Amino acid sequence: METKILVPSSSPSSSSSAPLSPVILTQDELKKIAAYKAVEYVESNMVLGLGTGSTAKHAVARIAELLNQGKLHNIIGIPTSKITYDQAVSLGIPLSDLDSHPIVDLAIDGADEVDPFLNLVKGRGGSLLREKMVESSCRKFVVIVDESKMVKHLGGSGLAMPVEVVPFCWKFTAMRLKALFEDSGCVAKLRTLGENESGGVPYVTDNGNYIVDLYFKKDIGDLKVASDEILRLAGVVEHGMFIDMATTVIVAGELGVTVKDKF
Amino acid sequence: METKILVPSSSPSSSSSAPLSPVILTQDELKKIAAYKAVEYVESNMVLGLGTGSTAKHAVARIAELLNQGKLHNIIGIPTSKITYDQAVSLGIPLSDLDSHPIVDLAIDGADEVDPFLNLVKGRGGSLLREKMVESSCRKFVVIVDESKMVKHLGGSGLAMPVEVVPFCWKFTAMRLKALFEDSGCVAKLRTLGENESGGVPYVTDNGNYIVDLYFKKDIGDLKVASDEILRLAGVVEHGMFIDMATTVIVAGELGVTVKDKF
Repeated sequence: METKILVPSSSPSSSSSAPLSPVILTQDELKKIAAYKAVEYVESNMVLGLGTGSTAKHAVARIAELLNQGKLHNIIGIPTSKITYDQAVSLGIPLSDLDSHPIVDLAIDGADEVDPFLNLVKGRGGSLLREKMVESSCRKFVVIVDESKMVKHLGGSGLAMPVEVVPFCWKFTAMRLKALFEDSGCVAKLRTLGENESGGVPYVTDNGNYIVDLYFKKDIGDLKVASDEILRLAGVVEHGMFIDMATTVIVAGELGVTVKDKF
Repeated sequence: METKILVPSSSPSSSSSAPLSPVILTQDELKKIAAYKAVEYVESNMVLGLGTGSTAKHAVARIAELLNQGKLHNIIGIPTSKITYDQAVSLGIPLSDLDSHPIVDLAIDGADEVDPFLNLVKGRGGSLLREKMVESSCRKFVVIVDESKMVKHLGGSGLAMPVEVVPFCWKFTAMRLKALFEDSGCVAKLRTLGENESGGVPYVTDNGNYIVDLYFKKDIGDLKVASDEILRLAGVVEHGMFIDMATTVIVAGELGVTVKDKF
């Protein structure tokens, strides 16, 4: 893995090339810096996977800007969610889907956690399945995050690792997921639109499924083993661990942008 | 594996215990013989997984009959499909679900193929996901088939091995499934309600998904490896191979009933 510390040369919030340290940047500005840096990987005539979420939306906006300026042309976007589809349509990015364009040149998306091996947790935004379909079929997958997303091990942020499940007997599936990671102190909660589980309406994914969020007290160990164990449960559709998929991770922090390449 | 050849003692089509060979039985009569034999495993106070399909429906009917005769009592059925739910309700079998009864004492269901190790292909009836949820959580799983379902290896009948997939970009998922088993001469076809793929309306499962039917020219090799490879494809919800799940297979043939127990 090669790590380079760069001062962003085309920061959207600064036209100079001075170090960022004297400026206090918001988390959203950091996301935008990472997103703009990622769009430097985009070339004309590419089929592009368009990610979902608060970081990816900056990348989608930037791609549209470069198309409108004539600096990019002949781009075909493959959106990873209905939300991104709507954003891209409103910005005039030509779109297609995996059925018509099964080979994606480059995908750009955010992540909720990134471990030192560039494994990811994604899907807190609820689009993990379509994201994984697009991003498992791309030649390059550039992940864009602010530095708060870097963790020592997946689950390490104490935030959710989402699992998309069929609504049929979801409680049973949640119970089996919890049992699978009992040694890691797993808690499994249905994602709802309300404030608490008993009162809330279940969150429904673009595919009509539910999300069970898993929280771990300890490292879950070998990720590939954990992944297979989760996928073997009938009732599970997909999970939010993206293992060995990212080829580059761009991290925006107060001291600049770090580009981590998988080697 | 223990194999016993039995003459059915309570054949529904014959009140005598004479060998069946002089009588020509229809496939449906063979299914009924296997189903009635399986219901001998049912005891009062059990939570029962109720299968789906032309063989399982005979078992459901027989359970209802014994309940109505007072020979069984305190049975709770867990149906594996909407069709079985409707049948059981119409016959007065008390029902529940996995959320309320996560431990199932015994499940009885048909299969489309059974290999010599009691691995199964199921789901040509389209209910593979709910069947697998129920049958992967039961203490005993009795499979009932007529002898035409016995194969040397799964896929060996030349009929479909179904895979439940999300409708989103199903063509892409079908293409990836086909690629996975290229060496086995795999053909992947969307299941439709019409007669041909181009003209038909997609068959939709109880969970709102599509079915891609896989056909193999050759043995697909290690089933557990194949299973994990299929499940790792984002877009796949579940597949119809039931590996290491059946504890007993009851096979009805012209010469009697064979009971094969997993040991």
